[in-house]
Amino acid sequence: MTFGSTNDVTVQLGARSYTIAIADGLLDSAAHRLADYVSRERMIVVTDENVAKLQLPRLTASVQAAGMSVHPIVLPPGEATKNWQQLEMLTDQLLAFGVERGDHIVAFGGGVIGDLTGFAAAIVKRGCGFVQIPTTLLAQVDSSVGGKTAINSRAGKNLIGAFHQPGFVLIDPSVLDTLPPRELRAGYAEVVKYGLIDDADFFAWCENQGADLLTGDRTAQTEAIRRSVTAKARIVAEDETERSGRRALLNLGHTFGHALEAETGFSDALLHGEAVAAGICLAFAYSARRGLCSAADAERVSAHFADAGLPNGLAAAGVRADGATLIAHMRHDKKMEGGALPFLLARGIGETFLARDVDLNDVAAFLDGTD
Amino acid sequence: MTFGSTNDVTVQLGARSYTIAIADGLLDSAAHRLADYVSRERMIVVTDENVAKLQLPRLTASVQAAGMSVHPIVLPPGEATKNWQQLEMLTDQLLAFGVERGDHIVAFGGGVIGDLTGFAAAIVKRGCGFVQIPTTLLAQVDSSVGGKTAINSRAGKNLIGAFHQPGFVLIDPSVLDTLPPRELRAGYAEVVKYGLIDDADFFAWCENQGADLLTGDRTAQTEAIRRSVTAKARIVAEDETERSGRRALLNLGHTFGHALEAETGFSDALLHGEAVAAGICLAFAYSARRGLCSAADAERVSAHFADAGLPNGLAAAGVRADGATLIAHMRHDKKMEGGALPFLLARGIGETFLARDVDLNDVAAFLDGTD
Repeated sequence: MTFGSTNDVTVQLGARSYTIAIADGLLDSAAHRLADYVSRERMIVVTDENVAKLQLPRLTASVQAAGMSVHPIVLPPGEATKNWQQLEMLTDQLLAFGVERGDHIVAFGGGVIGDLTGFAAAIVKRGCGFVQIPTTLLAQVDSSVGGKTAINSRAGKNLIGAFHQPGFVLIDPSVLDTLPPRELRAGYAEVVKYGLIDDADFFAWCENQGADLLTGDRTAQTEAIRRSVTAKARIVAEDETERSGRRALLNLGHTFGHALEAETGFSDALLHGEAVAAGICLAFAYSARRGLCSAADAERVSAHFADAGLPNGLAAAGVRADGATLIAHMRHDKKMEGGALPFLLARGIGETFLARDVDLNDVAAFLDGTD
Repeated sequence: MTFGSTNDVTVQLGARSYTIAIADGLLDSAAHRLADYVSRERMIVVTDENVAKLQLPRLTASVQAAGMSVHPIVLPPGEATKNWQQLEMLTDQLLAFGVERGDHIVAFGGGVIGDLTGFAAAIVKRGCGFVQIPTTLLAQVDSSVGGKTAINSRAGKNLIGAFHQPGFVLIDPSVLDTLPPRELRAGYAEVVKYGLIDDADFFAWCENQGADLLTGDRTAQTEAIRRSVTAKARIVAEDETERSGRRALLNLGHTFGHALEAETGFSDALLHGEAVAAGICLAFAYSARRGLCSAADAERVSAHFADAGLPNGLAAAGVRADGATLIAHMRHDKKMEGGALPFLLARGIGETFLARDVDLNDVAAFLDGTD
């Protein structure tokens, strides 16, 4: 058996360091890479109904060829699965299966499956291991790396959770072939984000290669994933639990985006990645309005998202709410500190910074004057 | 205002180190010690109905005298409160109150309140601070220190939880005056445990002073708490998350005890501390049977628990089950590793060790031949 070339990235976290393996077709030889983490003959794999149908047979074939079997736990697809009831049911199933602290549970799906499974692993017996095999571009470049796990609560998204790092992340770009194009575009917003944070060269790469990536070019996809997770691994290693403000950079566009998602009811009307795209454009436009970055840079960002088929502002995101309504959503953000909300603004492309002096009323006035 | 003399003990865990303050009457000046941890004007205090009636007025008076107020969250007393539903309701209330990551929630009660509140703090916004003010002897000498937090699941006790250290522990022995005598005795079993683990002098101290402690002698109570938490702080610092086997020493008597609790349905028929007392006696008797420790030491341990009014074996604990039934309960222990169960045995008083070679069938035969 031969294996495709892999690009391994390491997240440096001392005793909790782990490898992210990235390669086209890696899923078909997954058992080979998982063997170090999943010692039992039956591998517990948590997934959703869509992934179970489209991609689970590939994983199962690899595992069976290695003389092991898969014990699948298949959950309903969609954000609503990240709730208390599913968490309790999942932990009950893990305990009934006899999971032990040294075991690694496999999270095989998008962000919903990864967040829920990671959180279940964090709290079963006060902490079991888990492995991420992300199947959406968004999960591959963002949520599967870094150890943020969560469910949603009545009060909002991701408000209940834990920092719990996976033991290993396996990324195969070929699974993107079965991802709906709209979800591929939404995940691409998080790719572009890494360029905008602190890597202007990578943003330029996106301008050149983004269209190829979105039409299925495997080389472009693999390169985008590798550069994105390398950036994320570096930032997470610097600030694992979001204490120093460094990790907060990863939230570029997320404060504006969160308000848009709240306004559209966290529904399929606006996917998370779409909200992030619009949110990033708003963050750049607001930065330009405050004279922090050039109007030309803000316009270049907006144009690239539009070219990628992503919303680049309020109207494009289908949001008609006024500024007061949108900042009311922001006040529920879990990053609120002593009543103030740190904001990610930009001095230019690749020059994002955390601003602690943002007046929410000024943001509201800006939102009322933009579309 | 004057403060009683305090005996401060530190749990050395690097950046997560914290102080345990112990003093008679400390609750009446609690605001003074809590001020460093609870910065907001309204202090969130999670407690149960009994503690709210008997001891909360003292805490509230101290807090109000310092110009702050108490926001109490009062839960039903008893083990059943450590469930999923109460956890969800508690986290909803904390979020509705606007708790932030830098806040410290006060857990004011016995092990149930401490375990539930600590776990809620661990997962709200991926981790808020909390402070323990334990009000039972068992919580003062054991569960409030060391960061084990949990709820119970369908499959068993404490199977869902987190390691999450408190920021501060405040212990006032005077709260024991309102504790039912049976609960005081149950907590005393965990005090004796520390002597049996690795401090024969402290066990001799218990033989001399235990009766005074149980009849309300404040000096004896304070000394027992100080020595117990000092021992626990040392062991936790050596092995915070139970990896090396060192922290496992704290489970002396707990594997046998857990089987007794399971057999009696985790009900008031047998309190946790009572099960631990009987479990310790069984661990010593089994150690003697295997020739590991002298029959005289096992007898001395048994006699002391009997003198203290605690069960010292199966019959005294009201359990009539056979060995096969009891080891079936043990197989559900969360310390199971690769199908085997590490056992705490003794070479003598103060000489407990972790044995990994125990055959559960041999334990069953022993249980069938003992009372």
